[in-house]
Amino acid sequence: MRVDGRRADELRGLSFEVGWKTQGDGSCLVRSGGTVVLCVASVDEGVREFLRGRGQGWVTAEYLMHPRAGARRQSRDGFNGRSLSGRSQEIARLIGRSLRAVVDLKALGERTITLDCDVIEADGGTRTASVNGAMVALAVALSSLQAKGALPRPCLLGVASGVSAGLVDGAALLDLCYREDHVADMDLNVVADDAGRLIELQASAESSPLAREAVDGLVSLALKGAATIFEAQRAALEGAGVSLGALRAAP
Amino acid sequence: MRVDGRRADELRGLSFEVGWKTQGDGSCLVRSGGTVVLCVASVDEGVREFLRGRGQGWVTAEYLMHPRAGARRQSRDGFNGRSLSGRSQEIARLIGRSLRAVVDLKALGERTITLDCDVIEADGGTRTASVNGAMVALAVALSSLQAKGALPRPCLLGVASGVSAGLVDGAALLDLCYREDHVADMDLNVVADDAGRLIELQASAESSPLAREAVDGLVSLALKGAATIFEAQRAALEGAGVSLGALRAAP
Amino acid sequence: MRVDGRRADELRGLSFEVGWKTQGDGSCLVRSGGTVVLCVASVDEGVREFLRGRGQGWVTAEYLMHPRAGARRQSRDGFNGRSLSGRSQEIARLIGRSLRAVVDLKALGERTITLDCDVIEADGGTRTASVNGAMVALAVALSSLQAKGALPRPCLLGVASGVSAGLVDGAALLDLCYREDHVADMDLNVVADDAGRLIELQASAESSPLAREAVDGLVSLALKGAATIFEAQRAALEGAGVSLGALRAAP
Amino acid sequence: MRVDGRRADELRGLSFEVGWKTQGDGSCLVRSGGTVVLCVASVDEGVREFLRGRGQGWVTAEYLMHPRAGARRQSRDGFNGRSLSGRSQEIARLIGRSLRAVVDLKALGERTITLDCDVIEADGGTRTASVNGAMVALAVALSSLQAKGALPRPCLLGVASGVSAGLVDGAALLDLCYREDHVADMDLNVVADDAGRLIELQASAESSPLAREAVDGLVSLALKGAATIFEAQRAALEGAGVSLGALRAAP
Amino acid sequence: MRVDGRRADELRGLSFEVGWKTQGDGSCLVRSGGTVVLCVASVDEGVREFLRGRGQGWVTAEYLMHPRAGARRQSRDGFNGRSLSGRSQEIARLIGRSLRAVVDLKALGERTITLDCDVIEADGGTRTASVNGAMVALAVALSSLQAKGALPRPCLLGVASGVSAGLVDGAALLDLCYREDHVADMDLNVVADDAGRLIELQASAESSPLAREAVDGLVSLALKGAATIFEAQRAALEGAGVSLGALRAAP
Amino acid sequence: MRVDGRRADELRGLSFEVGWKTQGDGSCLVRSGGTVVLCVASVDEGVREFLRGRGQGWVTAEYLMHPRAGARRQSRDGFNGRSLSGRSQEIARLIGRSLRAVVDLKALGERTITLDCDVIEADGGTRTASVNGAMVALAVALSSLQAKGALPRPCLLGVASGVSAGLVDGAALLDLCYREDHVADMDLNVVADDAGRLIELQASAESSPLAREAVDGLVSLALKGAATIFEAQRAALEGAGVSLGALRAAP
Repeated sequence: MRVDGRRADELRGLSFEVGWKTQGDGSCLVRSGGTVVLCVASVDEGVREFLRGRGQGWVTAEYLMHPRAGARRQSRDGFNGRSLSGRSQEIARLIGRSLRAVVDLKALGERTITLDCDVIEADGGTRTASVNGAMVALAVALSSLQAKGALPRPCLLGVASGVSAGLVDGAALLDLCYREDHVADMDLNVVADDAGRLIELQASAESSPLAREAVDGLVSLALKGAATIFEAQRAALEGAGVSLGALRAAP
Repeated sequence: MRVDGRRADELRGLSFEVGWKTQGDGSCLVRSGGTVVLCVASVDEGVREFLRGRGQGWVTAEYLMHPRAGARRQSRDGFNGRSLSGRSQEIARLIGRSLRAVVDLKALGERTITLDCDVIEADGGTRTASVNGAMVALAVALSSLQAKGALPRPCLLGVASGVSAGLVDGAALLDLCYREDHVADMDLNVVADDAGRLIELQASAESSPLAREAVDGLVSLALKGAATIFEAQRAALEGAGVSLGALRAAP
Repeated sequence: MRVDGRRADELRGLSFEVGWKTQGDGSCLVRSGGTVVLCVASVDEGVREFLRGRGQGWVTAEYLMHPRAGARRQSRDGFNGRSLSGRSQEIARLIGRSLRAVVDLKALGERTITLDCDVIEADGGTRTASVNGAMVALAVALSSLQAKGALPRPCLLGVASGVSAGLVDGAALLDLCYREDHVADMDLNVVADDAGRLIELQASAESSPLAREAVDGLVSLALKGAATIFEAQRAALEGAGVSLGALRAAP
Repeated sequence: MRVDGRRADELRGLSFEVGWKTQGDGSCLVRSGGTVVLCVASVDEGVREFLRGRGQGWVTAEYLMHPRAGARRQSRDGFNGRSLSGRSQEIARLIGRSLRAVVDLKALGERTITLDCDVIEADGGTRTASVNGAMVALAVALSSLQAKGALPRPCLLGVASGVSAGLVDGAALLDLCYREDHVADMDLNVVADDAGRLIELQASAESSPLAREAVDGLVSLALKGAATIFEAQRAALEGAGVSLGALRAAP
Repeated sequence: MRVDGRRADELRGLSFEVGWKTQGDGSCLVRSGGTVVLCVASVDEGVREFLRGRGQGWVTAEYLMHPRAGARRQSRDGFNGRSLSGRSQEIARLIGRSLRAVVDLKALGERTITLDCDVIEADGGTRTASVNGAMVALAVALSSLQAKGALPRPCLLGVASGVSAGLVDGAALLDLCYREDHVADMDLNVVADDAGRLIELQASAESSPLAREAVDGLVSLALKGAATIFEAQRAALEGAGVSLGALRAAP
Repeated sequence: MRVDGRRADELRGLSFEVGWKTQGDGSCLVRSGGTVVLCVASVDEGVREFLRGRGQGWVTAEYLMHPRAGARRQSRDGFNGRSLSGRSQEIARLIGRSLRAVVDLKALGERTITLDCDVIEADGGTRTASVNGAMVALAVALSSLQAKGALPRPCLLGVASGVSAGLVDGAALLDLCYREDHVADMDLNVVADDAGRLIELQASAESSPLAREAVDGLVSLALKGAATIFEAQRAALEGAGVSLGALRAAP
């Protein structure tokens, strides 16, 4: 029995409010248990210096905590002359890579889609909630580009879904909340596409190295969770009138 | 007839969702027409260096735009080595001063209440919407301190309510939306307390200096608007079980 | 009787040393009681990015305290990796807006005039002293542009004059010195043009909200003071061979 | 046949010059093919704020590229007001976590060991080369603390060894050089301890998601490589008179 | 015949307005030809971290250009997130070292004297003018400390006087103005004490290396100039009622 | 007898490992007693803004300490939002000026050569060791440009060699090590060309002003030392197949 009464392989309550925000080319307020993230997609024409003239687009992300996302107020990260923390940069890079893995950047053309992920409440799993919500916001933005005829062809290669897993007191648990995450032996995050293939796999055993078999078990658990999350993303998008089928690039 | 169909002295639709956020000692999502601001109060024991040992508390604010608060994505202000813009600092200072004017800082004791005002959507009047929402969040936080017996005596001296007014094509208009603000001859912001007294008055006639009588007319218009806003704040707080009467310091 | 022996509606001793500095397109050392500010105008061809191609010029300001402007040395504001304080930015923005309100930016053409206001001694009223001195330096710079034939037509729309007023122990006082400013109930600053119209009005009642009538009285007091300051500015400019009449745009 | 003539499961030439630097509590110049990293351990008494009074030590790392580590000079990362790049921070955090996983921080006591990893030449695999060299430098520093009687008991829990693997044109290759890394379908880095358990596993498939089986194959390949690297680390330490046996904590 | 009509070994017109500024523990507006520097001494109790508990004081300096010290406006150095330029730091360090060389820091006690040198007009020789003016401001500050009985014994060991010299078209010239400095083969700056001993000697021959004899000639020329400057400093201080004799430490 | 057994006019052991680093257009690991500096030349086409269109090149330097160059770890200078220390900037500027003095920048053409000087071990004399090593790396880079036919004519005007001298307990000593430098009465650094002419002369007598004769004696001592250093530089370059004769510009 887990701290919040879930089974070992059970996800927390998950919801996506698509179009929560008025401004933006796609937005989604994702709730995963006590974690809440506002994900907003913005499309800008043009790409950054290092990509110019290559005939391709870019997808990038920013990830930031609201100062009162947790039980105590924290100074705003990366703000007022301070560098953005390594943790926030790492997560922003993870989100960006995960989404680029499912977009045909050539088909996107010379535009940049930025996914702003603002963590409103933090109760564990903020990075994977951000991937999931940003994925939904991105799909909305692509749908709207497609509706405007701005894309030469569909450019979605898949759907990215992320989830954490960890070993707590010897038990493999899916989708850790903060209290579990805090005491877990290994912190593992998986991002998969909707075909069950791996996009990102990050496992860290700072407190104590783990046998490979245990890690393999956690990966299996997470992949199952990711498949369920994909269904929730698909349903939320459909509810908002966005059909994944129409967005998908031909194989 | 105004761009959005309002009368000259009519406020935009105004709502306060008290307790919108789980974490925080008081929170409020304020909507004023198309403008949306998330206001969150955090209480911390202790005060900054310059106040230590004076037996008084402090109320301060941060004001920040979501990068996609408007029609185009902007870089995050004050972020990643950039200084916070003068505009954002000015507004944060205005919010802090307005709220300190209605709090008995001695009765608050050596604690700091920080009001984080994050503008989610910007359609004009973000600074006064922030004052109004932060006022509500502050009242919730004070109510909860009082309920815990942490205050020696009630410390609310009044309620701060702010609104803008401006001259557009010779007409004095209340509570400008972005399209009006953009073309107004004078940009005037008033913060008043619930007794109709002035806390802040800022008028700026960059495009063309204004006769004093015209300014006086705008102030009158704004003071009437502030009185209406106060009623909405009071009602929202009551709806959330916070009675202003119980919070008020004895005269 | 005020702390320095003045009547309630009396300005402090005021002088403008026009051309105090050799380098610069216009300069003025303004003394207002114990406050001393060096104001220097610099004309540069071209405008910043956001104005390019609009066929108009820009007037902007920087405001900075000498580290020993007061009784104790302070670290240089905005220096060595620190952000410029919100207060300094606010004042710089006020000076810029005040001067732009009296310049026909189209007639100025695509050039930028920067007014550097360095506070040498601070004894209250540094922001309005800066407006007044910067106005004089700006007029000298415009005069010299006009003499060179660089302006298609006169571009001065008026003269900006600023002064503070405040309520001390119930008495409305003009042009507060530091000791008065420190204990005033309301801090009010007015910038007017020489036709008595308002350019900027900023009133702040942090310690205790003020009835509107009291504020109105302070505005009236300040407007009278501004008219006297205008005479001093005019006289100083004439003494330096600059005739306001010749600089003024046709109505 | 690989670009540099190696077999698919063959490591690049690997050497550790222990004690390359005079100053430092342990140092090692690690060469792995064309990649060269100077790793230096510094022991300081005391720990950072967040750990004080917990009776434990800390191991941390900095990772930085020499401006001419590659074919063209780059500006120094994190230097002269710029934030340290997300990539450098990510790698520094990875090195720190990897080493903390093999140190009994309680036995270390309230001291901080910093591992400075300066990449002199970059030809792929700089993060794992840094882990490997930093591990050697750390062991030397621990050995010297132990010799001084500064440790209550041995505190080494294992040896961290890292290596990359990737899929290039469908082939699973070990220890990618820059030219391979550049075109690989997946970039996978493993850090294992000398018992073959996983400390860190990072896999990223930005260009194209990968079936789980393929990832599993890369992990197996990398674990074999890590075992070989451990032997080289052990031999280098022995050559420098440091016996791992003496440093190891009792199980 | 020099560009400004001087003889080769002739100083520019030199004046020290002692007490030019009201606030400050000593101040001096030094004019040397077209160069004008405001030098202000501030005494603070206590010393920086690295000196605490050593029973000695410190003398330090800041050197900064007014943005319009020259013919064109420059951005403020070291301001708004930019690092202070290497040149400004170098000069501030030179001023600090020069003054510390003539102060008995033990006798000064645990206080810090900061010399703010703000260059108002720059026409060559700003660093030596700053040394000379700061020396005068420092003497006034020491005199006032002594008058208050705050010093256990006199602490002035000598008087620092600085001047430049250079080779222009083969001629050794003293005290270069900007137009000469710009074309000089060698830029040499000397700071000497009033006994003719060297405190600082900096010679730089970027454009073309110089024979030692030529350098020796310039040093001789500069030492003569420094002796004359010392007389002007002494006279200015006496005019302000400060007797060097009374300030001098016993030999 | 000196602390390390040398005669007063004896240099420390000096060696130049030319080509120590693989990447770079010229590199050299210079060892001077316990001081070790890695000097790397990088050639980039183009020059910075301020030189564009003048048909000349530029030579510049960066100087940085490894955090563990000394007996205790120091935070990385200029790193992570901190400004580069004044000392490091001063030294980088000295190296740059010294090398520009011996290069015909017109003949170099519109390219920039950057010399990165990373101090690996610091035992006194790091600035002059950097000049000496950077000179060697620069010569290698010029030789390689010449071999490629990229230079219209030879552009080396001389060889820069630097060394320190100082007065310790009344004795004039050459090439101070850290323990001597620490207690020296004067810190003097000379950079000369191979014709014995002075490029840079910096003498600082912070602790106690020095008679000119004593300074002259130190300069003589240093010039002799520089001549010996030149021979070592020439020999090291010849050993690496670089003939100074071929690089030299016609007189």
